[in-house]
Amino acid sequence: MIQIAIMGLGTVGTGVAKVVEANAAQISRKLGEPLAVKTVLVRHFREGAYRHLMTDDFEKIASDPEIRVVVETIGGVEAAYEYTKRALMAGKHVVTANKQLVAEKGCELLALAKAKNVNYLFEASVGGGIPILHPLTQCMAANRIDEVYGILNGTTNYILTRMIRTGAGFADALKEAQEKGYAEADPTADVEGHDTGRKICILADLAFGAQVDPGAVPMEGITKISLRDVEIARKAGYRIKLLGRALRLEGGRRTAYVAPHLIAEENPISGVEDVFNAVVVKGNATGEVMFYGKGAGELPTASACVADVMECLQASPAREEIGWSPVSDGYEDPAKLVSRHYFRIAGSEAEAAAAFGTVEVLAAEGGETAFLTEGLKAGEAAERAAGLQVLAGFRVLD
Amino acid sequence: MIQIAIMGLGTVGTGVAKVVEANAAQISRKLGEPLAVKTVLVRHFREGAYRHLMTDDFEKIASDPEIRVVVETIGGVEAAYEYTKRALMAGKHVVTANKQLVAEKGCELLALAKAKNVNYLFEASVGGGIPILHPLTQCMAANRIDEVYGILNGTTNYILTRMIRTGAGFADALKEAQEKGYAEADPTADVEGHDTGRKICILADLAFGAQVDPGAVPMEGITKISLRDVEIARKAGYRIKLLGRALRLEGGRRTAYVAPHLIAEENPISGVEDVFNAVVVKGNATGEVMFYGKGAGELPTASACVADVMECLQASPAREEIGWSPVSDGYEDPAKLVSRHYFRIAGSEAEAAAAFGTVEVLAAEGGETAFLTEGLKAGEAAERAAGLQVLAGFRVLD
Repeated sequence: MIQIAIMGLGTVGTGVAKVVEANAAQISRKLGEPLAVKTVLVRHFREGAYRHLMTDDFEKIASDPEIRVVVETIGGVEAAYEYTKRALMAGKHVVTANKQLVAEKGCELLALAKAKNVNYLFEASVGGGIPILHPLTQCMAANRIDEVYGILNGTTNYILTRMIRTGAGFADALKEAQEKGYAEADPTADVEGHDTGRKICILADLAFGAQVDPGAVPMEGITKISLRDVEIARKAGYRIKLLGRALRLEGGRRTAYVAPHLIAEENPISGVEDVFNAVVVKGNATGEVMFYGKGAGELPTASACVADVMECLQASPAREEIGWSPVSDGYEDPAKLVSRHYFRIAGSEAEAAAAFGTVEVLAAEGGETAFLTEGLKAGEAAERAAGLQVLAGFRVLD
Repeated sequence: MIQIAIMGLGTVGTGVAKVVEANAAQISRKLGEPLAVKTVLVRHFREGAYRHLMTDDFEKIASDPEIRVVVETIGGVEAAYEYTKRALMAGKHVVTANKQLVAEKGCELLALAKAKNVNYLFEASVGGGIPILHPLTQCMAANRIDEVYGILNGTTNYILTRMIRTGAGFADALKEAQEKGYAEADPTADVEGHDTGRKICILADLAFGAQVDPGAVPMEGITKISLRDVEIARKAGYRIKLLGRALRLEGGRRTAYVAPHLIAEENPISGVEDVFNAVVVKGNATGEVMFYGKGAGELPTASACVADVMECLQASPAREEIGWSPVSDGYEDPAKLVSRHYFRIAGSEAEAAAAFGTVEVLAAEGGETAFLTEGLKAGEAAERAAGLQVLAGFRVLD
């Protein structure tokens, strides 16, 4: 019998306990012995199925030699960071779905894990139950990774899908997402792109092997996307999707950002709808591969945590491929990145052409003109648009 | 410096040598030391970049203590099987892309590897460079896997895509595929579904933990698909794709088969075109996830082999999760599987209805009727169709 502990008993923590019980046979067959949750760390005791496992004393976990792996599902940074450090210091493997903590402190925690000869794993932090981080770091280990991009937040993708399908405006689509439980009462972290931003930082860290600080990454959400742009894009054969994107630049430099993009229908990621997530990884040998599935939810996310628990128990500790350098030099602003741009202006095609040269007009109606530019650095596009009355502006994923 | 050997220097073997050279920096960073190809086993010496590494004496590899991993890219069963056994007996890890060998002898070779405390890994045998087997066995390890299906053969998917897009018949599309180098001069293994069959057996072995013999699996290829059916399906919102499919049945029993299916446009796998592959895995916690990319090619396949080489060097040997039971009892014929069926008959809707009850007519023209049945076991569908003049019949993926 292998014993584990869970810190925090919210949605994911409860899911971990459920998956360990429900899939005991599969887990035991793969591990060679049964797995059980011995202790659950909570702030406040409450009644329920796991009452008999609860403690509010972290030392009960740290000092218990039977507990080999601790699953951190507290969320946020402060308490989660402290308890993760203490668990690693006590020689326990730690597994988490906490993208904020990994994006901000992952490098330090991985180094601590390595020093203590244990693992710190976080497959569930990106894409919920979709396998992404292990495939990226292990299965594609013989590639130079040149780019990673993805639809990394189910809430915003659900809102955009509703706007496309039903013609609802952003506010109405958000309300519907909240009613269905897909968006939180305070949707800021989702709709402003912060959640996507944390995930693309983790992907960039692993893909390029050096820290990308969430604070340095420009994050634009979906609040400025109007139904008008969604419809113009659709008629021209594009979908508007919120992407997190990370690219390797010349000379080992790298960039990452979050922004809505126009994506051509031919790109398989344009068809990713509702709460589904998808991540595209470009390797120099493998080419483009895509990982697709539900990016959130109690059981998918929990099952990824439990798989990491099993990985800790089977793998060699402190594997090179899931660490990265703490040096965040070499990060460049994505303003230098060349792509086509979509603009909708209050003005004529002539005004658009005067500012941008050759443009491809997608719509011209009611004094407004929507058009695509040729390939331009985002900084240059912004400069050229400065004299125009810009109603909307997005990148095209080229 | 870590030394490896390659057995066989065809497309994949040459690709392995190229990837080791081209991505030396990435590989060295992840392994903590450089990786190099020391020896290449060939039947006949020939000039070229790797002439100085060639030997025709296997013992040079077996007895070389510096060589820790052997990549088998001989292909087929006989020689590949013998050399793999001898390499494992000599205490070398073995990595391969050889789906035929893994499907037929994988269970035995994994057991031998385990006994010798080394790894036998074969990520490249399914999906080329697309990570599938590791995600299935590791990242989804906390799931009970209920179903796996996929477009597993790029050649046939290219032919079907050309038929849909250009209206070419099967023979013309095959000829075009051969001219482009996507199909071999003898295309039997691809177009008759044998290649897909080997891959779905490997997926079933790993997903369900017990041997599925390729000899027991019904394999139907694409040679009977006519342009007429492709067009009728397209107008009704379906695509015809060749799927390998494996399902868990009641009581731990399981089935697997290869056949063309009508797939509704809403299913993301219906949009997988050209030489791309995609695999859908259904886990009881994770739900459906899909892996997508180029399923073949020199560098993608080779990079998956090199990643497995790195995995061998880093992982604990003989991991439980990539073995399976040799007992092939519990395999059931897919004739018992219920799904809707597509038929095109020389006859009227009345004849179709007389045989099948309620049917959904997709086309009725020139004395022919194409229709979908309600959910039926394939065996029963065949019985009911026995009195009709059947021109085409396929399953619907429900």
